[in-house]
Amino acid sequence: MAGSSFGNILKVTTFGESHGNGIGAVLDGFPAGMDLCEEDIMAYMRRRKPGQSAISTARKEDDEVEILSGVFNGKTEGTPIALLIRNNDQHSSDYEQMKTIYRPGHADFTYDAKYGFRDYRGGGRSSGRETAARVAAGAIAAKFLKEMGIDLLFYTAAIGDVMISRERFNRKFLDSSVTGMPDVVANQQAMGLIEGLRAEGDSVGGIIEGHISGVPAGIGDPVFNKLDANLAKALMSIGAVKSVSIGNGIFAAYNKGSDNNDQFEADENGNAVKKTNRAGGIYGGITDGSDIVLSCAVKPTPSIAKDQTAIDVNGKAVPLNVKGRHDPCIVPRAVVVAECMSALTILDAMLMNMTARAENVRKFYAGKDSE
Amino acid sequence: MAGSSFGNILKVTTFGESHGNGIGAVLDGFPAGMDLCEEDIMAYMRRRKPGQSAISTARKEDDEVEILSGVFNGKTEGTPIALLIRNNDQHSSDYEQMKTIYRPGHADFTYDAKYGFRDYRGGGRSSGRETAARVAAGAIAAKFLKEMGIDLLFYTAAIGDVMISRERFNRKFLDSSVTGMPDVVANQQAMGLIEGLRAEGDSVGGIIEGHISGVPAGIGDPVFNKLDANLAKALMSIGAVKSVSIGNGIFAAYNKGSDNNDQFEADENGNAVKKTNRAGGIYGGITDGSDIVLSCAVKPTPSIAKDQTAIDVNGKAVPLNVKGRHDPCIVPRAVVVAECMSALTILDAMLMNMTARAENVRKFYAGKDSE
Amino acid sequence: MAGSSFGNILKVTTFGESHGNGIGAVLDGFPAGMDLCEEDIMAYMRRRKPGQSAISTARKEDDEVEILSGVFNGKTEGTPIALLIRNNDQHSSDYEQMKTIYRPGHADFTYDAKYGFRDYRGGGRSSGRETAARVAAGAIAAKFLKEMGIDLLFYTAAIGDVMISRERFNRKFLDSSVTGMPDVVANQQAMGLIEGLRAEGDSVGGIIEGHISGVPAGIGDPVFNKLDANLAKALMSIGAVKSVSIGNGIFAAYNKGSDNNDQFEADENGNAVKKTNRAGGIYGGITDGSDIVLSCAVKPTPSIAKDQTAIDVNGKAVPLNVKGRHDPCIVPRAVVVAECMSALTILDAMLMNMTARAENVRKFYAGKDSE
Amino acid sequence: MAGSSFGNILKVTTFGESHGNGIGAVLDGFPAGMDLCEEDIMAYMRRRKPGQSAISTARKEDDEVEILSGVFNGKTEGTPIALLIRNNDQHSSDYEQMKTIYRPGHADFTYDAKYGFRDYRGGGRSSGRETAARVAAGAIAAKFLKEMGIDLLFYTAAIGDVMISRERFNRKFLDSSVTGMPDVVANQQAMGLIEGLRAEGDSVGGIIEGHISGVPAGIGDPVFNKLDANLAKALMSIGAVKSVSIGNGIFAAYNKGSDNNDQFEADENGNAVKKTNRAGGIYGGITDGSDIVLSCAVKPTPSIAKDQTAIDVNGKAVPLNVKGRHDPCIVPRAVVVAECMSALTILDAMLMNMTARAENVRKFYAGKDSE
Repeated sequence: MAGSSFGNILKVTTFGESHGNGIGAVLDGFPAGMDLCEEDIMAYMRRRKPGQSAISTARKEDDEVEILSGVFNGKTEGTPIALLIRNNDQHSSDYEQMKTIYRPGHADFTYDAKYGFRDYRGGGRSSGRETAARVAAGAIAAKFLKEMGIDLLFYTAAIGDVMISRERFNRKFLDSSVTGMPDVVANQQAMGLIEGLRAEGDSVGGIIEGHISGVPAGIGDPVFNKLDANLAKALMSIGAVKSVSIGNGIFAAYNKGSDNNDQFEADENGNAVKKTNRAGGIYGGITDGSDIVLSCAVKPTPSIAKDQTAIDVNGKAVPLNVKGRHDPCIVPRAVVVAECMSALTILDAMLMNMTARAENVRKFYAGKDSE
Repeated sequence: MAGSSFGNILKVTTFGESHGNGIGAVLDGFPAGMDLCEEDIMAYMRRRKPGQSAISTARKEDDEVEILSGVFNGKTEGTPIALLIRNNDQHSSDYEQMKTIYRPGHADFTYDAKYGFRDYRGGGRSSGRETAARVAAGAIAAKFLKEMGIDLLFYTAAIGDVMISRERFNRKFLDSSVTGMPDVVANQQAMGLIEGLRAEGDSVGGIIEGHISGVPAGIGDPVFNKLDANLAKALMSIGAVKSVSIGNGIFAAYNKGSDNNDQFEADENGNAVKKTNRAGGIYGGITDGSDIVLSCAVKPTPSIAKDQTAIDVNGKAVPLNVKGRHDPCIVPRAVVVAECMSALTILDAMLMNMTARAENVRKFYAGKDSE
Repeated sequence: MAGSSFGNILKVTTFGESHGNGIGAVLDGFPAGMDLCEEDIMAYMRRRKPGQSAISTARKEDDEVEILSGVFNGKTEGTPIALLIRNNDQHSSDYEQMKTIYRPGHADFTYDAKYGFRDYRGGGRSSGRETAARVAAGAIAAKFLKEMGIDLLFYTAAIGDVMISRERFNRKFLDSSVTGMPDVVANQQAMGLIEGLRAEGDSVGGIIEGHISGVPAGIGDPVFNKLDANLAKALMSIGAVKSVSIGNGIFAAYNKGSDNNDQFEADENGNAVKKTNRAGGIYGGITDGSDIVLSCAVKPTPSIAKDQTAIDVNGKAVPLNVKGRHDPCIVPRAVVVAECMSALTILDAMLMNMTARAENVRKFYAGKDSE
Repeated sequence: MAGSSFGNILKVTTFGESHGNGIGAVLDGFPAGMDLCEEDIMAYMRRRKPGQSAISTARKEDDEVEILSGVFNGKTEGTPIALLIRNNDQHSSDYEQMKTIYRPGHADFTYDAKYGFRDYRGGGRSSGRETAARVAAGAIAAKFLKEMGIDLLFYTAAIGDVMISRERFNRKFLDSSVTGMPDVVANQQAMGLIEGLRAEGDSVGGIIEGHISGVPAGIGDPVFNKLDANLAKALMSIGAVKSVSIGNGIFAAYNKGSDNNDQFEADENGNAVKKTNRAGGIYGGITDGSDIVLSCAVKPTPSIAKDQTAIDVNGKAVPLNVKGRHDPCIVPRAVVVAECMSALTILDAMLMNMTARAENVRKFYAGKDSE
């Protein structure tokens, strides 16, 4: 309730601070009988892992995930799947000066305002490190979706003013794209941009896009648990995200209805074919079977090496030069976080949907006699 | 769970279809002892009411709200406040042709895909009429926030490509602004735009902005129940909303960290003053005491009078000319919906926050002896 | 959250005070496509209705239920089913003296202690009248269970020291049994007991038993949402209930393990047959396909006509002679409340169970292609 | 949702199987700033620990609790407190025969019926070992309650037919009472009973009682979240519990209203004094400031060494002689589990109650200015 749980039937609860004993997640409500091993999770963890490239933080974390429970003989048991990731490479002493200083762009002050004190080591609970637990849990949801033929394609669409080109879109390149851009040229440009900013001690933001295909029509719930509403929460809950769009998003505001409606046309057999997917696959909060299309804007890492002015616990302005190891651009590592949050949201909605029709409930129980 | 409840401590549940007996809301968890009468609610309902201007639907609904429970002797009781709004001016026969046709831009197909059939009269549960219940409940939350010195300023920032000017910002004009724009000039321009589109049988979208001032620092919860995440869900759950931004939103993506961080500077006494509010008043999901700034993009009404091609229940392309009474621009009426959803979200977060510190819990119970 | 919602997928929210405009319920998460009309609900409401016999309160309430939403063309829509019951026969002036007096055995003092004031007319929200909304919602769940071959048999097992006999058990007699006892002789004895107590201005409690047959094996969830735990909450939340037992209940405490375990024996084919059902059909919180057996103890109506000593708002002892119209024994009318709460609990658990296995999720979605 | 979370504001989620890597709990919503160290928790863990007496299982578990998160500098942070208990002394091979056999009195069959397979080693998730995680989390709640002057007195009231005597009630003896009985004589008798049954390979059940004093008036919520309803769920969710009573419980059923009502009398100053506490301190689901009195019936351990007949996966009757190390009477070790579940429930209700009155919300925020 207090903030660290997400989902309805499929509920993930995360825990952990950046420099504590460990972080992790408990995933409850996951169906029994899916094959699962630690390597399934590690494949996603590696996409988020720090210290892998020139444009990432130098913090080294193996991010080895231990499955504490919920898996027996290589299969999910239906019981809570608890996942533990130990913290290894904390340099807590880097943060001693933070004890009495609130950094610009960070949650230092707000945590103090709420709780009366805070774990000032590496941002504590507000650290981006928290998202490792989301990836660990989300990887499990993503695996199940994949088994059901649902494809999640998430990538970096922009870094600063470098945008990918639809013409150069190259999915295969994603595996080796350091920026997460599916575009060889844009990746190169963005690398240059980031390296330049890192040299200046600065950082930059970007845009993440997601296309989810294979989700059947009918997924999502009316009114408050609309699929797009839950996706918006899922993505906006990632610390660095400042904006979430579904389909054509903000451009819908500038359109006329006749342009914005996804019109149908007749094919040669008179069958209706939807000509566009401006709605992003969701109407009234419920999928229509088209691709779900979404995007989110990620702010630049607030931890920069430039001289800044901060505020101390007495309200005084103090000079600040942040130590620690930070990403000049968090976007590439955040892609898999957005993907995993979306996977959790969509699988939850699919589970919720199984009870939407009385006939399906009846059919499910028709063959099941009691004694 | 299935979709029509929102909130944690303060929980609103809505019900009702566009052409059924009525719509309404149950607001549970509202504190006891606040003065409340129907007129408090009607003041907000009138801001959403249809049929009030040249640019609104001609459907006439008094939208009289009856308080069924939870109020005694003019005060909230702490028990559920049930609110009922009867439907009066349904022209259900307008919708007979919809029985077998799925309109472009609407949830007709998706509701069928989910439930196997649907209430095709006026969109049923997916109708914008559902938002009247949100306003009725949200008005109660907004009243309490106002009593605590919290000011919610919501307005239309853009309609199509007509944007308000910060220089001409005129809050007082809001009461008489037909478009909801706090700008005499832009209001005039937007009126012209809308009337032109209505004449063509078309519609247009726009942008709603909100500034919430007076919220103390420390409100919101970590990780998934971040205040911005819950606001994103609250706003994206409004049917027509396609994008939600907090603070500078999408612009954060294009910024450098040194530009995007809200820096401090020293005033004459050496006290730190925040120079900007690009974060929109929320860090790590928790308020810092600055104004909460947000915006959302509203799509153009999908119900347009132009000839369109729809899909029928057999998958065939069929010509469509929508009857019924529709708004050429829903943005002006949606402003109060966004405001009320934000009010519910913020009050809920403020209630949640009261238990954040052990010392506050101890203090609360210190004077309360048992027998 | 604050108290008036119950359930997970199938969530009921009730509202209303004894002497307010009305009481009601919103049932969200109910599957679409079940036939439902008001008469389906009224059949259950009549079993709870006051004023029907010599041993019931004289308050006359038609308890007509209006379905406000969620039903279209005689079928549930999958959207919230809102139910409204108007209050008609309030004699609020009977309660004027209660304004400053806390009655023994009632929630008068505790509501004041919590909320700072209370609706003193007829107990307000704490009145047994609140249970009418539970019956209205529960009737819908019970109808669906019945359609799936699940039989709920609830009855009065004891009133004061008059207990039913297993030998004389007569289900058919239940329709005409004024006490709710399925035993002609016990009914007669209990009637005599109650009439004698009513003459003295006194009241009496009793025991309600329930046997639910036809629930498949595998229903319920581990640990906290055990089916028996949820049933215990469901029943204990009925105001007059003071004890809940599953299976042999309290007698398990006095048994040896070898007596208490439900042993198997071989039939002529060597197949195992369970010899007893002391567990009441639930192991580890999950059904085994046997009958679910439960009981609850109902306290005597605290409103009695005898002279009592009460406490006033200043803490002084004051003489009390309660006016108003009360049941000398609430047990007969509470039977259907227990049944309806059980129906809501069991249907919710059955819906929850549909996502327990990955293979079932896969199978459900196997045939459902997206575009 | 799926079953392993409990609570509203204060939410505990547990995980783990009897023979997996470990078990544990995540406690979210706990207020920041309370002193907490592992030893605070271990003091409760030791009361539940196996292998401590002649009447306990021989399984040796240190049950060392590691605090993984949520505590910084010896104080709770307001963030999730994750607790990990490693499993050490599994003898999984003892359970190989269980792979194809469903034991009487256990959840073997029901878990298979639900999930399609099960972790058959030591009962998996359905093992009583799961309750160690409840104690770890509940100890934290209990500590906070204690700091606020709330006393939880839980003890064994009966084992089989050996009952404690109110006259011999000796709280100090509890620390050394092997049976958990606060009565030297009854403890002796019960020890004899248990040892006799152990020799026979049998087991026995009993009754746990709890008296909670110091809870202020006004705690609990109306209708479904009544404090007694939530306590009933909390206790019934403990695997071995088959019945829960509040106050005089089942005896209320046999009483007349004039006997059952807790009457007042005037003291020498005319002040009203409650003469009895038959209601157990709760009216309408809300505390009146008297002691909360409850009890629950615990069934005998189903794992007995006697020859029994079980059912195998093919439905055949098979002879069973259970190996493994089991408690002939689980009651003494279950006392602290009941206490901890009650502590979690009551603290949650106290947190919920802080927002019950608008005046308290206003007062809380009155001094808190935003910028």
